[in-house]
Amino acid sequence: MVIPFLPGGARAVARCDALGVVPYSDMPGGLYRGYLTPAYAAAQDALGGWMVEAGMTVRRDPAANLIGRYEGTEADAPALLIGSHLDSVRDGGRYDGPLGVLLGVEAVAALLGRRLPFPIEVIAFGDEEGSRFPAAMLTSRAVAGTLGPDALDLADGAGIALADVVDISTYLTAARAPGTTLAYLEAHIEQGPLLEAEGLAVGTVTGIAAQLRYQVSVRGMAGHAGTTSMALRRDALAGAAEMILAIERIARADASDLVATVGRIDAAPGAPNVIPGLTAFTIDIRSGDAARRDRAADDVLDALADIAASRALDFSIQQIHDLPASPCDPALMDLMDAAVAGAGQPVRRLVSGAGHDAMVMAALCPTAMLFIRCREGISHNPAEHVDPADADVALAVMLGFIDRLGSAYVR
Amino acid sequence: MVIPFLPGGARAVARCDALGVVPYSDMPGGLYRGYLTPAYAAAQDALGGWMVEAGMTVRRDPAANLIGRYEGTEADAPALLIGSHLDSVRDGGRYDGPLGVLLGVEAVAALLGRRLPFPIEVIAFGDEEGSRFPAAMLTSRAVAGTLGPDALDLADGAGIALADVVDISTYLTAARAPGTTLAYLEAHIEQGPLLEAEGLAVGTVTGIAAQLRYQVSVRGMAGHAGTTSMALRRDALAGAAEMILAIERIARADASDLVATVGRIDAAPGAPNVIPGLTAFTIDIRSGDAARRDRAADDVLDALADIAASRALDFSIQQIHDLPASPCDPALMDLMDAAVAGAGQPVRRLVSGAGHDAMVMAALCPTAMLFIRCREGISHNPAEHVDPADADVALAVMLGFIDRLGSAYVR
Repeated sequence: MVIPFLPGGARAVARCDALGVVPYSDMPGGLYRGYLTPAYAAAQDALGGWMVEAGMTVRRDPAANLIGRYEGTEADAPALLIGSHLDSVRDGGRYDGPLGVLLGVEAVAALLGRRLPFPIEVIAFGDEEGSRFPAAMLTSRAVAGTLGPDALDLADGAGIALADVVDISTYLTAARAPGTTLAYLEAHIEQGPLLEAEGLAVGTVTGIAAQLRYQVSVRGMAGHAGTTSMALRRDALAGAAEMILAIERIARADASDLVATVGRIDAAPGAPNVIPGLTAFTIDIRSGDAARRDRAADDVLDALADIAASRALDFSIQQIHDLPASPCDPALMDLMDAAVAGAGQPVRRLVSGAGHDAMVMAALCPTAMLFIRCREGISHNPAEHVDPADADVALAVMLGFIDRLGSAYVR
Repeated sequence: MVIPFLPGGARAVARCDALGVVPYSDMPGGLYRGYLTPAYAAAQDALGGWMVEAGMTVRRDPAANLIGRYEGTEADAPALLIGSHLDSVRDGGRYDGPLGVLLGVEAVAALLGRRLPFPIEVIAFGDEEGSRFPAAMLTSRAVAGTLGPDALDLADGAGIALADVVDISTYLTAARAPGTTLAYLEAHIEQGPLLEAEGLAVGTVTGIAAQLRYQVSVRGMAGHAGTTSMALRRDALAGAAEMILAIERIARADASDLVATVGRIDAAPGAPNVIPGLTAFTIDIRSGDAARRDRAADDVLDALADIAASRALDFSIQQIHDLPASPCDPALMDLMDAAVAGAGQPVRRLVSGAGHDAMVMAALCPTAMLFIRCREGISHNPAEHVDPADADVALAVMLGFIDRLGSAYVR
C-alpha cells in the first residue's frame, strides 16, 4: 500500500484506513479482523514494517502480540509500553484499537532517533473485543499476568480452538515480571459524544468506570386488552415504563459522569391484544466513582420497589455484574494534563465508560489514557470517524507526555 | 359420561367440564378443540345427544354448525337463535364458548315442553377463535352471510385445507335469509374482571367495543451505554416508556369503558450495554363508543408527538386496525335488563372488549349478549373458572329474556 506523506497523526489515521480493507479485513466490503485470522496476520506484517521504518526492532511475544522496541539510554530500565489492540468487531470501525497502536509507532518515529532514559515498546494486543474467541482483552491479560491456564480453553464460532492457532503451552509466559514496565499509555477514540459536544480534540482519561449490571423482572397479571378495565389492571409493561423513567431521572439528577441504561426489554406474552403479565429488562449503571455508582444503584432499587408496590406488581432484581473501577494513575494524569495544555488544548478529564486494555494493564503498572474525539460518538460501526487533525493533536500530546515522563524519570 | 342431577346452570358448567378432556379435547392433559377435528366431532355428538334430551331435533348446517331446533306455536315464525362456539384455543379454558351453547340447551330443557310463538334454535358455531384455520368467527360469518367464497381458501398449520374436511361447494349456503331470524342471544363468560370486582353474577352487554390498533416506531440514536453521557442521549426506549405512561394516563383519565394497551414492545439493538436506538410498540384502544375511542386516540397521538419532539426523537405511527363498534340491540338490552332484575340481580351494563360471534350476527339480526362472571377475569387459560351458581343465575336471566321476548312478540 502507498500512503502519502502526512503529519504523523494524519498518517496514523491513513494507515488505519489502509488496514480497513481486504486483505487486512476478513470480510469483503467492511472491516472484521479477528484475532489470529489471515487478515490479522497480514495486518501484523504491515504493522511490523512500519515499526521497523520508525526505528524499532520487532518481535512477537508468546501471546502473539506484535511488539516494536525502541531502546533507551539506560540499560535494563523498565519500558514505557504504548499500545492498544489490532482486532476489530464484525463490521466495525477502522480506528477502535489500531489508532492507538499506530499513534505509538508515530510517537517513536517522531523522536527521530532521540533516546529517552527508558525503552519504549509499542504493543498491538489481540482479541480485546472478544469478537473471535469468547474472551475479552485476552492478550493484554496474558501480558498483565492475570490469565489462568483454564482461560485458554477457548474455541471460536467455527469450532477452531485457540490451541489450533497458537502454542498455548507457552502462552502465559507472555506475562511481564512486576517492575519491568514503567507505565502503559493508550490512546483511543472516545466512542462517546462528550469531546465532540464540548468542541475538544482530546481528553485525559481518569479511569475505567465501575459498572453494575442488573436483570429486573416485573410480574403483574396478563389480561385481555379489551375486557380488563384500566382500574383493574396490573400491567407489567406500564410498571416497567415507570421504572425506566425513574432510572433515567436518577442518572440525570446526578449530573456527573454517572450513566444508567436500560438496553434490553422483553414483555410477555407480547401480543398487541394482551396486557403484559411479565416484563424483564436490564439495567447498566456506571461511574468513574464506585461510591457514586453504588449510591445511584441504591436510589434505583428504592424507586423500583416503590413503583412495584404502588402498582401491586411483583418484582425481583438480580445483580449480574459488579466490575470495579480501574482508575488511571494520578501522577500520570497530571503529566497528561500538562501535555494537553502544552499542546495548546483545553484540559478536560473524563471517565471511560467502556473497557480497554488499559483496565487490564493497571494490574501490572501505572496506566494513562488519552481519548480522541470521534464523530457523533459512533463506534463499532463502519461510520466510525476520526478527524486526522485530532490525531495530530493526540500525537503532540503523547510526545509531550513522553518527554515529561523522561524528565521526571529517576531510576 | 355420567353427569349427576344438577340445576340447569350448574349442569351446563358440568357438561363444559365433561367436554374439557379427551376424547372431547385434541390434547391430553388440557383442552384444545379445533374446528372439525376428531375431538370436535366427539363434542358435537355429545351435544347432539343433550339437544335431543332437551326436546330438540338436531341437524348440521352446510358450515358444519350443530343446530338443535325447538318448534314454536306459529308456523314459519322467524327463529330465536341462541348460541356461541364449540371450539377452543390451545390449552384454553372449558367455558369460553361451550357455556353459551349449553345454557341454550338448558333454556330449552327448562321450558319443559312449553312453546313460544317462535321456534328456538340452539347453535354451536366453529372456529370462532381461529385457532385451527387462520380465520376468526368462520361459521358465524357463514350463517350471517358475510363470508365471500375466497374466505374458504384456508389451510391449518398441518397443511390440511378446509376443503379437505368439509364440502366447501355448499358451505356458503349456511347463510340465513334476512328476516328468518328473530334475534341472536349469546351468553358468554366476561373474560374480564369487572363483574367480579363489583360482586355481580351477570351483566347486560351493550355491544362489542370499537377498536383501533397502531404500530408505533420511535427512532433515537444508539450509543455505548458506558460512553454516552445522560445529557447527550436520544434513548428510543426511554422515550417509548414516557409514551406508554402517557397512553395509560389518557385511558385512566377517561374513567369510562375506554381501555388502551401497549402489549408488544421491541427495543433494538437490544444489548444491555447499548442505548436503544429504535423502539417499536403496539397500541390497542377500545371503547363501546367510537367517538370516545377516537377522541382518546387523538389525545394519544398528540401526547406521543409532544414526547418525541421534547426528546428529539423521530417517530412514526401507522394505523393497522379500525374495527367499528357492534352495538347490541337497544330494545333487546332493555329486555335483558328487565330479565336481570326479574332474577333478583342488580342491573349492570358493560361493553365487551373482546369480539364474539354476536358481533358477526349483528349483520343478520338484532343481537343480545349476557356476560357471566369468571374468576379473576382469566380466560384462554386452563385456570378459567365459572361458579356454577352464576351459571344458574345466567340461565334464569335467559329464561326471563325468552319469556319477555315471547310476550312482546308480534308477527
